[in-house]
Amino acid sequence: MPNWLLPENIADVLPSEARKIEDLRRLILDNFRVYGYELVMPPMLEYIESLLAGAGQDTESMTFKLVDQITGRTLGVRADMTTQVARIDAHLLNRPSLTRLCYAGSVLRTRPSGLHATREPFQIGAEIYGHAGLEADAEIQHLALASLALAGITKVRLDLCHVGILRAIIAEDAAATKDETALVKLLEAKDTPGLLKISVDYGAPTRAALLALPHLYGDITVIERAREILPKLPAIAKALDELLALAHAAGEECVTVDLADLRGYHYESGAIFGAYVSGLPNALVRGGRYDHVGETFGRSRPATGFSMDLRELARLMPSAARKAAILAPWSTEAGLKEKIVALRNAGEIVIQSLPGHENDQDEFDCDRVVVLENGNWIIKNLD
Amino acid sequence: MPNWLLPENIADVLPSEARKIEDLRRLILDNFRVYGYELVMPPMLEYIESLLAGAGQDTESMTFKLVDQITGRTLGVRADMTTQVARIDAHLLNRPSLTRLCYAGSVLRTRPSGLHATREPFQIGAEIYGHAGLEADAEIQHLALASLALAGITKVRLDLCHVGILRAIIAEDAAATKDETALVKLLEAKDTPGLLKISVDYGAPTRAALLALPHLYGDITVIERAREILPKLPAIAKALDELLALAHAAGEECVTVDLADLRGYHYESGAIFGAYVSGLPNALVRGGRYDHVGETFGRSRPATGFSMDLRELARLMPSAARKAAILAPWSTEAGLKEKIVALRNAGEIVIQSLPGHENDQDEFDCDRVVVLENGNWIIKNLD
Repeated sequence: MPNWLLPENIADVLPSEARKIEDLRRLILDNFRVYGYELVMPPMLEYIESLLAGAGQDTESMTFKLVDQITGRTLGVRADMTTQVARIDAHLLNRPSLTRLCYAGSVLRTRPSGLHATREPFQIGAEIYGHAGLEADAEIQHLALASLALAGITKVRLDLCHVGILRAIIAEDAAATKDETALVKLLEAKDTPGLLKISVDYGAPTRAALLALPHLYGDITVIERAREILPKLPAIAKALDELLALAHAAGEECVTVDLADLRGYHYESGAIFGAYVSGLPNALVRGGRYDHVGETFGRSRPATGFSMDLRELARLMPSAARKAAILAPWSTEAGLKEKIVALRNAGEIVIQSLPGHENDQDEFDCDRVVVLENGNWIIKNLD
Repeated sequence: MPNWLLPENIADVLPSEARKIEDLRRLILDNFRVYGYELVMPPMLEYIESLLAGAGQDTESMTFKLVDQITGRTLGVRADMTTQVARIDAHLLNRPSLTRLCYAGSVLRTRPSGLHATREPFQIGAEIYGHAGLEADAEIQHLALASLALAGITKVRLDLCHVGILRAIIAEDAAATKDETALVKLLEAKDTPGLLKISVDYGAPTRAALLALPHLYGDITVIERAREILPKLPAIAKALDELLALAHAAGEECVTVDLADLRGYHYESGAIFGAYVSGLPNALVRGGRYDHVGETFGRSRPATGFSMDLRELARLMPSAARKAAILAPWSTEAGLKEKIVALRNAGEIVIQSLPGHENDQDEFDCDRVVVLENGNWIIKNLD
């Protein structure tokens, strides 16, 4: 096997793509900053217990494990940065007040999430800690859509769900509570035959509610249909009120509701969302409320946030135009050196030829050249 | 053990430090760009054979290994990005011409390089492929010093060495050739008793030359002393000529020569350098020529480059001043929304309070506030 072969679902990013990712990274982080989000950089590596504390059930099998030569303990390479940032908020910053944090970095996963998905997403995201009110969720959803807009992605469908609904439905039914994990999977797959089979011994109201959930998707009117169909429990009414308020905040025209879109159910605690574009089956952004994660790090803190894969976002953007550059000859003559420094200080890309080489760059389009004329170094157009 | 504890020599980067690292990262990458270096992003993870192909002997023990669940093969987490970038040049870009590449990203190491060193350096660097001449080495050294200057580090000592000298000394002495690895370690440690012991059966000229190397350090005059003392071999003369030319290119006043500073010997192929500041024992930057690495990926290419740890660099910089920001009340009133959007578009940081919270941010200094006066949202100074 040739030694330049990369593992499956792992890839190099070459110059034109890398430039797009870098530019988008800066745009999005700069936007987080003008909203007052502070950048943190959690490590690639932690003890496995820390990395999995408060994380969803899927995270363990997605996390690469290795052995610490110093202590012999098991380390994990982060598969997700959200719990790391929650740990920083809860334990390290430990502020009494509202805290807005953002982050950007590679995560690694043992398996791809789909056939062509990468095992090394570049995760970028933002989180608000310390505010339990819907205003924080609304800001996070707004910021998620604003981040997509920076990538030129504006025709977005914001899909809302709320984990409180399923929790309320099964809370009073011991048989259903026992099947919680299986139910989440069946609901996500909208697997009605599976739901019929698993719920055969549940109470009739539980069963009816579970079988209704896969059909409760569509525009904002779904919320009123759910009010009629689902059990009249206070927790369900509250969840539906929250979804309605968030739909209003985001703008009803871009919102859909899908009460079975429960991805992240075990990790999340309230309203959750995904942002979709037409033609792509998977959400470009996932986010929601996860109030209990801080507790696992010793401090209960309301929390809500979102994250996305910058590589996937960049792939949806058109290629950047090749950047104009200036070719300079190789010489140590002082006047030329000065000229090049001045051009570079002005932001021009100046590529100095080395003796015997033509420059033939992928990313740069040398449309000008520095030449010596009458004792002065001047710029001439090429062609 | 509390689950917020991090492994030894692994740390979170909190907002004020993260901001310094992010700012410096952009400055240095932007500077690479105006020199015509193209950004690439190699993966965190590769088959261990690829990652170690062409790498120095130390790399294997420094590399974390894990098992690929898809293939069962052994993967490594990169401990160094240089060979990855050489692979990209040799195999993926495969250009006939000169290629300038740069990169920035985390690397992981099984052990720290010193007591307080991190196991997760943030490596940033630049490489030139396709030019065997010293002009490429000179550009790389210049760019390394320019990168340090962007971090405010200008009092730098550039320490030069050349792996060709030791190679030439031992080339004709079978006993010494056999001890190559041990000799490199003894020379790096300037361990004269060790050198006396190991060289007891070597030829007299070899022995004398090896014992002279630890003393051949100091200013540029060391090169002439070396010419007198070391064997009159063409390869040694050529190496000393190269060092002299590079010292002239960098400016003699900032250059020292240390013919036993052989770090990276097994990986490098020509002139090598380290950049030091007073008070720190380890080089802030390491670089040099490594012409044989491309071969291991199927294509022989001259190569020279440098890399450094952005985290270490940022630590040497003064803390950034807290950034002025504007506090805005929470309200969905359209006029306020517009005002905030306009301020943020102008680059102002506007932190919107959420109901019931005072904002108390680490990184931002809210010196102004948006208030409603006579029906208009205006900015007032605080205090």
